[in-house]
Amino acid sequence: MSSGVSNNSADLRELRADFDGDTLHEECGVFGILGHDDAAALTALGLHALQHRGQEAAGIVTFDGDQFRSERHMGLVGDHFTQQETIDNLKGPYAIGHVRYSTTGEAALRNVQPLFAELDGGGIAICHNGNFTNALTLRRQLIRDGAICQSTSDSEVVLQLVARSREKKIVDRFIEAISQMEGAYSLVALTRKKLIGARDPYGIRPLVLGDLNGAPIFASETCALDIIGAKFIREVENGEVVVCTPGGIESYFPFGKRPARPDIFEYIYFSRPDSVLNGHSVYDVRKRFGRVLAQESAVEADVIVPVPDSGVPAALGFAAESGVPFELGIIRNHYVGRTFIEPTQQIRTLGVKLKHSANRAQIEGKRVVLVDDSLVRGTTSLKIVQMIRDAGAKEVHFRLASPPIKFSDYYGIDTPVREKLLAAKYDLEGMRNYIGADTLAFLSIDGVYRAMGHENGRDNENPQFTDHCFTGDYPTPLTDLSDDVDTRQAPRLVETG
Amino acid sequence: MSSGVSNNSADLRELRADFDGDTLHEECGVFGILGHDDAAALTALGLHALQHRGQEAAGIVTFDGDQFRSERHMGLVGDHFTQQETIDNLKGPYAIGHVRYSTTGEAALRNVQPLFAELDGGGIAICHNGNFTNALTLRRQLIRDGAICQSTSDSEVVLQLVARSREKKIVDRFIEAISQMEGAYSLVALTRKKLIGARDPYGIRPLVLGDLNGAPIFASETCALDIIGAKFIREVENGEVVVCTPGGIESYFPFGKRPARPDIFEYIYFSRPDSVLNGHSVYDVRKRFGRVLAQESAVEADVIVPVPDSGVPAALGFAAESGVPFELGIIRNHYVGRTFIEPTQQIRTLGVKLKHSANRAQIEGKRVVLVDDSLVRGTTSLKIVQMIRDAGAKEVHFRLASPPIKFSDYYGIDTPVREKLLAAKYDLEGMRNYIGADTLAFLSIDGVYRAMGHENGRDNENPQFTDHCFTGDYPTPLTDLSDDVDTRQAPRLVETG
Amino acid sequence: MSSGVSNNSADLRELRADFDGDTLHEECGVFGILGHDDAAALTALGLHALQHRGQEAAGIVTFDGDQFRSERHMGLVGDHFTQQETIDNLKGPYAIGHVRYSTTGEAALRNVQPLFAELDGGGIAICHNGNFTNALTLRRQLIRDGAICQSTSDSEVVLQLVARSREKKIVDRFIEAISQMEGAYSLVALTRKKLIGARDPYGIRPLVLGDLNGAPIFASETCALDIIGAKFIREVENGEVVVCTPGGIESYFPFGKRPARPDIFEYIYFSRPDSVLNGHSVYDVRKRFGRVLAQESAVEADVIVPVPDSGVPAALGFAAESGVPFELGIIRNHYVGRTFIEPTQQIRTLGVKLKHSANRAQIEGKRVVLVDDSLVRGTTSLKIVQMIRDAGAKEVHFRLASPPIKFSDYYGIDTPVREKLLAAKYDLEGMRNYIGADTLAFLSIDGVYRAMGHENGRDNENPQFTDHCFTGDYPTPLTDLSDDVDTRQAPRLVETG
Amino acid sequence: MSSGVSNNSADLRELRADFDGDTLHEECGVFGILGHDDAAALTALGLHALQHRGQEAAGIVTFDGDQFRSERHMGLVGDHFTQQETIDNLKGPYAIGHVRYSTTGEAALRNVQPLFAELDGGGIAICHNGNFTNALTLRRQLIRDGAICQSTSDSEVVLQLVARSREKKIVDRFIEAISQMEGAYSLVALTRKKLIGARDPYGIRPLVLGDLNGAPIFASETCALDIIGAKFIREVENGEVVVCTPGGIESYFPFGKRPARPDIFEYIYFSRPDSVLNGHSVYDVRKRFGRVLAQESAVEADVIVPVPDSGVPAALGFAAESGVPFELGIIRNHYVGRTFIEPTQQIRTLGVKLKHSANRAQIEGKRVVLVDDSLVRGTTSLKIVQMIRDAGAKEVHFRLASPPIKFSDYYGIDTPVREKLLAAKYDLEGMRNYIGADTLAFLSIDGVYRAMGHENGRDNENPQFTDHCFTGDYPTPLTDLSDDVDTRQAPRLVETG
Repeated sequence: MSSGVSNNSADLRELRADFDGDTLHEECGVFGILGHDDAAALTALGLHALQHRGQEAAGIVTFDGDQFRSERHMGLVGDHFTQQETIDNLKGPYAIGHVRYSTTGEAALRNVQPLFAELDGGGIAICHNGNFTNALTLRRQLIRDGAICQSTSDSEVVLQLVARSREKKIVDRFIEAISQMEGAYSLVALTRKKLIGARDPYGIRPLVLGDLNGAPIFASETCALDIIGAKFIREVENGEVVVCTPGGIESYFPFGKRPARPDIFEYIYFSRPDSVLNGHSVYDVRKRFGRVLAQESAVEADVIVPVPDSGVPAALGFAAESGVPFELGIIRNHYVGRTFIEPTQQIRTLGVKLKHSANRAQIEGKRVVLVDDSLVRGTTSLKIVQMIRDAGAKEVHFRLASPPIKFSDYYGIDTPVREKLLAAKYDLEGMRNYIGADTLAFLSIDGVYRAMGHENGRDNENPQFTDHCFTGDYPTPLTDLSDDVDTRQAPRLVETG
Repeated sequence: MSSGVSNNSADLRELRADFDGDTLHEECGVFGILGHDDAAALTALGLHALQHRGQEAAGIVTFDGDQFRSERHMGLVGDHFTQQETIDNLKGPYAIGHVRYSTTGEAALRNVQPLFAELDGGGIAICHNGNFTNALTLRRQLIRDGAICQSTSDSEVVLQLVARSREKKIVDRFIEAISQMEGAYSLVALTRKKLIGARDPYGIRPLVLGDLNGAPIFASETCALDIIGAKFIREVENGEVVVCTPGGIESYFPFGKRPARPDIFEYIYFSRPDSVLNGHSVYDVRKRFGRVLAQESAVEADVIVPVPDSGVPAALGFAAESGVPFELGIIRNHYVGRTFIEPTQQIRTLGVKLKHSANRAQIEGKRVVLVDDSLVRGTTSLKIVQMIRDAGAKEVHFRLASPPIKFSDYYGIDTPVREKLLAAKYDLEGMRNYIGADTLAFLSIDGVYRAMGHENGRDNENPQFTDHCFTGDYPTPLTDLSDDVDTRQAPRLVETG
Repeated sequence: MSSGVSNNSADLRELRADFDGDTLHEECGVFGILGHDDAAALTALGLHALQHRGQEAAGIVTFDGDQFRSERHMGLVGDHFTQQETIDNLKGPYAIGHVRYSTTGEAALRNVQPLFAELDGGGIAICHNGNFTNALTLRRQLIRDGAICQSTSDSEVVLQLVARSREKKIVDRFIEAISQMEGAYSLVALTRKKLIGARDPYGIRPLVLGDLNGAPIFASETCALDIIGAKFIREVENGEVVVCTPGGIESYFPFGKRPARPDIFEYIYFSRPDSVLNGHSVYDVRKRFGRVLAQESAVEADVIVPVPDSGVPAALGFAAESGVPFELGIIRNHYVGRTFIEPTQQIRTLGVKLKHSANRAQIEGKRVVLVDDSLVRGTTSLKIVQMIRDAGAKEVHFRLASPPIKFSDYYGIDTPVREKLLAAKYDLEGMRNYIGADTLAFLSIDGVYRAMGHENGRDNENPQFTDHCFTGDYPTPLTDLSDDVDTRQAPRLVETG
Repeated sequence: MSSGVSNNSADLRELRADFDGDTLHEECGVFGILGHDDAAALTALGLHALQHRGQEAAGIVTFDGDQFRSERHMGLVGDHFTQQETIDNLKGPYAIGHVRYSTTGEAALRNVQPLFAELDGGGIAICHNGNFTNALTLRRQLIRDGAICQSTSDSEVVLQLVARSREKKIVDRFIEAISQMEGAYSLVALTRKKLIGARDPYGIRPLVLGDLNGAPIFASETCALDIIGAKFIREVENGEVVVCTPGGIESYFPFGKRPARPDIFEYIYFSRPDSVLNGHSVYDVRKRFGRVLAQESAVEADVIVPVPDSGVPAALGFAAESGVPFELGIIRNHYVGRTFIEPTQQIRTLGVKLKHSANRAQIEGKRVVLVDDSLVRGTTSLKIVQMIRDAGAKEVHFRLASPPIKFSDYYGIDTPVREKLLAAKYDLEGMRNYIGADTLAFLSIDGVYRAMGHENGRDNENPQFTDHCFTGDYPTPLTDLSDDVDTRQAPRLVETG
């Protein structure tokens, strides 16, 4: 996504061929605006700024005072939503939109959000970032009760629950529905008269409230406000339901209040570096991760080289702390966009070189510290270390600005199954040996918390963040994973065409 | 569709721009087969033979023993279902398919059939030819009860009713569902173990049962059996539900038995001329329409000229009866397929000439009898008469091998609203004047019945056919048209992307 | 192309996979107009009427007073030239256009006409229908002289010769160029100030001159005049060069005058039935072929069935002469357009049934006479005979409204190599046996001439027509076929992308 | 192209709408390989590494021992040349390829290289990086002599001259042809037996010779060798013609030897930072530009911010020299690839924000030094300065790591016409005022030379580099620009389809 400092979503995507493919997991971005003449165009721009959160599909639904209008497409926001005709179809001053990253095989259009339900005398469209950990269980029950689920998305469950609620008011129906959901969610919903933003009780996924000339806005990150010149108002709080109408904004806390526990991974790699989360500049945090990492795992070296683009801020921090020069020792080729769709075998074998090349003049004969944000399966790191060695490096030291990822995510980040995670397979020496570095070091879990400003590190009684990928400490039940849930009894429809 | 002898569906399509757009009306073709290794490919071929019943979209669903598999595409069967990859996706020995003709604005993929519902412990896919006349009313009730309708198709209602049925057995659920439906329907449904064919109590739309080496087949017309070399077994009877399993075929008459009343329009223009309906060769019937027409409305003339392709059989009958030579005085250009998608203004003004040209040598200086199957809005007839005059005809006599169409269809044929029907606006002389012919004559309603072998013509007490377009005699209630039904209270989703 | 009465170009196309692929052979249609505000749109319409002469590509070049403008596309005229944007690009009151039918492997855009050459102080665009029989020989010489040929089309040679001519005036350069060409050609050329139409010394391929409100028009057939309401003025004569300028029309006969010898195949199957060639209605001629055929090869029968669409007029003539009823015993499916691009094996094996179906009710138990226009390889006839037998015919008698094709064409019709021609492989009994008919008969060569009004049949001293496919009598030298011409010495460019 | 450190080609592209459109100017990349089984795939990879030199089209021609084979496509290398089918078409162990960046309106396929000519008994394909400054003049003469130019590319002229040469040997014909050409060129040519690389007498555009397991390779930059693991052998020298055959490599200097004068712009922005040109690491040079700039134009500041990606190395050098911290204060959105094809007006007005966003936390309240590589029209710089101010910068100082561009390029770089160059319109203060910075400074011309290692700066008698964009000192005649050359007398073909 962003230059010099992106998340590793492309890296993750590459891994997907090997995934076990629990297809209800995905990472996404959401946006909504109420009461602006250019609602659809502004939503398209907001989604463009959130493109790093999902590149496989995008959708927008508007309400024009009479009808809801929908455009949903596979591909990037810029592939479709820059066409005048598309924006013209999306009439009306209310709009919500979604960018989506999905796993192979379920990339069908039917799963592209916003999802919509016609209600008695109304209608509701919903966008979801996160993952419901009891969606399969609820879905089974809904189907037993006669519901027809057209998508295979976990997000449809909340729509079905809204449709079936016997509450009179739409906000009550919405709250009744989400009350039944477990897991992580930032939701933006659109009805005929209301724009609703909601965040799960722990505030795992981000959601902010902004304002553009009086029009309230919800967005996953502040960068989506910046692109359209909107003001940041505040974070939607954990467990909060914010309801915007032309008359004003109301706030509900249907689950009571408790301390937030946002996902630390938004800081590590997911959010855009120019976004501000909970008052922290993501870029600054990443630099601090690099600084603490340099303190914890210093090494004699000649040059600090980031793995582009995601390792850049941490590498700058590492270099500043260590006093070793920072150089762009790896050059990234940005033209690979669609290259991997049908690679020839010849191209496949060249692997990492299609995307990265060693800047030999900065590498040759030097002791190189490579800095990356995180290590997932290690297959790319392995190739990068080899490439740096081939370019003549005297030593290669690998430094990760996050702790070892030992556990899968179930809250909307598309991680491999545990067995594929390098840190779940090997100890530190095993990992070092696998990727072929001279030394390997990770930021400690307490280092993460200290970099976030918690001097005493992680509060193990009441952890300040959701950090299960490192600790295995999942804040919510993982109902669908329990042995009682048979997720496959009913034959599904595989829609290839 | 077929050469020299096609229906006027292209004509109707041209009219659509002017339609009021009651988007639940459509004409379709259905096909299903149980227990053949090439089920999907055979279904594609059957649909190809039924292509004249719907050219805008096609879909096939198979069951592979584990999953249902779906391919649904806008366009012709030959555009998509001739690709090996597509057929390969459609694994399994059970298949049903659908071709569809829809009106502008609702040509979205979500409405393309077969429609599918995952059921508790099962699943069902449904194809529908016809139209439910109480679908909107039921849909309103379903939504009030919390159902989410993803399509805007009337056919989805029967699927929702199946999903909500509390019956245990799938056949009972299916019968409970169709028992609530009014209107015209030939349905083909696929479950994990059964292939079901059903026809409405009057048998308005056609459905036949065939067999290919022991594999039972349902199809809208016999031409779909012929193309794959299958045997014709029998018509599915009016009000019959036929359930095929690997173990055999069972028949149900849940509504009791009554006399059939098939739609006469299948003979007039809809079915393919090489199909055999209820024991009548469609081609022969059309020739007899021409013969009776010649008896009823003879005229001194030099040449009988069909309006191609649909008027050819009637013109042959007319020529044989009258003794006047038959000539192809109008040549049809078959390359217009996609021409009208974005016509230039220059092309638009040339109108009929893009599709038809006068064969001047057969026309010049002659008294010409033009024979067509039916007259809808008259706009094309008007241009054809003018073209024949421009080619030097001395006289132009227009003969229609069906009675004046004065009433709209609500059973699955996409007719204009009544005010657009020429015969609803003018008397015979007014129509003659509008199209500019020297004389104009229609086949009488009794002539139609006599040509069908009913010597005494129409039995007005118990009409042998559904013929409401000519008589206004609709065999079923038209519930959705009643004043009590507000079909628009809930805002719908307009899906353009 | 035209309904009920088309040529067998689709049939030929099917054969192409087996062709030896002498890629300079093709059949085409040409059109040109000088001095009309809607020149490009009218040219598109004219090409649409000529679409039966070539369906693989179409192109138009205009001159806007300053620049030549070009749009050339693979596909049908209606696929591209109905878009407003395309027509808008083709500014200017002068236009020429071309439809093209080419053989596999050389269907590259670089060969799509009109071809253009920038000249010193000018420019010229050329469209060609026919085939130069010394093009390869001249091409070799041109390349030795330093010319760069961008296309592999024989037509480019005439353009190269125009470019290299040392004559001052463009008309003189054009005449010098065509004077070096052998073979068949109808050419339409556009310069900055002139529209030129030219026909080879024998007038093998057709070309007519028309007029639309003072704007002169050239077209391959009169049907292209009819579609735009233009007047037919006269045929361009054999060996004539007609030069149109805003000031008037001039005629040249650079090769002197001699009797014309037009290609008889234009009557047999190539031209549209509503066209008038040399004063003969093509439709009438075909009916007369059928009448003479019935006189020559009568047979006891119950029904006369045309092979659609091309056999219809001859079958009508046969039926009229024999008194046996004409019936549409074979129905053609017009939706096959793109079916054969990537057929599945299952579909391939069904062969002819995708395009044709037996109208069983007209066939069963009857003695059937099948009438077709011509017999090429016999592979389709074989399947049709079988299909008619499968439908229950008692006897099948095959009648061809032309003599046996024993020789390949080298004048622009894409025939198989000789060894693939059924009549070159077998005698009459062998052919009958191959296609499986009870009897087989062809129209005699003298019968052809009598049907054309030459009472005494063919004048073997001075044949009235080019009829080499039946007689082997080629009117021009076939220079490129001589043993001295090595057509492959220079490596060519195979352009797949 | 490369991450964090790209050229400003996108910037230039944006400007093109305003160009006067001298369509023969373009920047390109070339590649060639002789004698490798995977020649086409390796060429595709080499072109992928050179993608930053041209993104609008790519082409490869191979020779398979019998035929030349060609694939040419609009779009990125990765869009087409990663498909197995495409590579399979490009059989043979010899291959050359080209990436191209062209101006609007002439982006037609006919101009995509390699260009090919069939010769008597042979054939030649040519790829060209650079621009011939007498191409129009020669083209006029060629057309007068009867040549037909199919492309509008200046590169075709050299092909025409080869075709017309009366020399016997292909190398002699090639040398005779290039001897007539003026301007800048790096050429790679392929014949049936030879791979030729040639560089103009001044060596303005780059070309290197490499080796992969004995197979000689030509490439525009060393990065194309690195991606396939090939060894760098040496630069092709200025004025050298290198001829590779399976038997070995021969070198010719047909124009004698003289000092080289490579284009300084390759260092400033065009080449990839990881390429090594004439022994200089491009990345290192750019850092030195930044260091010298900091020496020449220091300023009190809090943060050094590069304009991504092209300004990054210079900014790193500036920061290192000045001791002011380097921060990524501007984040680049890499998903804009195809966004600007059809932007809505709403999106257009947001301008720079679609591609760049301010990293507010690094900007707010700070004195910011923006570092970019060069200033062309200033329209983007203007927006970036405003964006930084909007993000709360206290001061904005703009520093350019190259001198003011006052003159257009005619050697293959697509610069605006002079009147559009900001430095040609304004003095320093005028430029500062236009872009709205607090201070503005450029690297001096002597500073450029010093950074390149020439301690005494530019040798004005014998300049070490081609630097006309800054100095107006064009090393070759600009024949086509002389008043005597009427470049438009002949009407050209505008090919839109």
